[in-house]
Amino acid sequence: MVTDPQSACFEAGIKFGSLYHQFAGTPVSPDSARSLERAMEESIENQPHCESVSVNILDDALEATLADSAADYTELTGSLMRVEMRIEYEDVTVRTKMEMEDGYPLMKLVSVEE
Amino acid sequence: MVTDPQSACFEAGIKFGSLYHQFAGTPVSPDSARSLERAMEESIENQPHCESVSVNILDDALEATLADSAADYTELTGSLMRVEMRIEYEDVTVRTKMEMEDGYPLMKLVSVEE
Amino acid sequence: MVTDPQSACFEAGIKFGSLYHQFAGTPVSPDSARSLERAMEESIENQPHCESVSVNILDDALEATLADSAADYTELTGSLMRVEMRIEYEDVTVRTKMEMEDGYPLMKLVSVEE
Amino acid sequence: MVTDPQSACFEAGIKFGSLYHQFAGTPVSPDSARSLERAMEESIENQPHCESVSVNILDDALEATLADSAADYTELTGSLMRVEMRIEYEDVTVRTKMEMEDGYPLMKLVSVEE
Repeated sequence: MVTDPQSACFEAGIKFGSLYHQFAGTPVSPDSARSLERAMEESIENQPHCESVSVNILDDALEATLADSAADYTELTGSLMRVEMRIEYEDVTVRTKMEMEDGYPLMKLVSVEE
Repeated sequence: MVTDPQSACFEAGIKFGSLYHQFAGTPVSPDSARSLERAMEESIENQPHCESVSVNILDDALEATLADSAADYTELTGSLMRVEMRIEYEDVTVRTKMEMEDGYPLMKLVSVEE
Repeated sequence: MVTDPQSACFEAGIKFGSLYHQFAGTPVSPDSARSLERAMEESIENQPHCESVSVNILDDALEATLADSAADYTELTGSLMRVEMRIEYEDVTVRTKMEMEDGYPLMKLVSVEE
Repeated sequence: MVTDPQSACFEAGIKFGSLYHQFAGTPVSPDSARSLERAMEESIENQPHCESVSVNILDDALEATLADSAADYTELTGSLMRVEMRIEYEDVTVRTKMEMEDGYPLMKLVSVEE
């Protein structure tokens, strides 16, 4: 048997994997970061049960990457963004986030509430 | 609080979203379907807690798509494949699959067992 | 030997392949189409020699796809968009576009001018 | 007017952009590198005018990346692979490659021959 909270967490994971692997590798610069954030949020919010997505491309991390580089843009990776999502499935609300931990972008369940 | 079964389901969802959005859009034909299946399986099995991935690109569905077409290849979409995965997280085993339902590729939790 | 116009055409092709395979598969609806257009344009304009990108997600084609569907969003494919680009490489200007022809999204060189 | 060699170079660029942005971000490890190489080659060879694709995921570069890491896999990027392609368009043969130059993966036209 599968419970509603378990299904809600499965749905939350799908959205995170989708967002990451759809958009990782996209060329990004300080000038194009805002439009990419918005497109990531609005596209993933189309998916079922996905109530809210917030993407922040980290200007400091982006500038630091570009300072080491001869190019004026880079490719989007997990170390350049922070993401939060809220999933609603039946009566369950799941909150998730992705942030750096020990040098890795970690996708985490923040809370599961009925 | 987040339980181990909930975390296991979240991890299962991440793998499904990753697999789908990494590989959807890949050019595929009957001749290249086998190597794509294998690469999808082995790449996603790299991800944490992902014990087993099985991808079947559906030759019948692929042939039917190409029969309507002037081209000899198409782009991979959910309607052309069936996927099964097994996730192990702490003492929890999650089984998932993706298959067509009412014309849509649906990602589903099959079982969650401690 | 490789000429500047040939290099310019190679660069133009890279941008088209990048745009298509980065963004194909993105969830899209009438409400999220505008932000996706903008992100596609601005991200690909980051690439070297890419002076201008114009993406139009075709509302009519999108509505027609959704009318046949139980869902309120779909995945971005070539049949849902028209794209134009201008590449500048040394003294060469290349104009390209993607549009539907005989049911296929075709990427085409429009002009190569020194 | 557009010449055949220019069209051939445009086609060559499309294949490179496609290959890169379809597969960048794929989870890869020494164990899964061979199946990913094969799938990349065979999928892109489906595209029109694409006669041959050779992908080498660089074991040394991959091991070096993983040595700095707590994980046993990473995401595919340009610095981890070398790619060669041959495009045939009308009577024109175009050879291209991608390799590291000054720390960047550079896509280059090697020769254009009629």
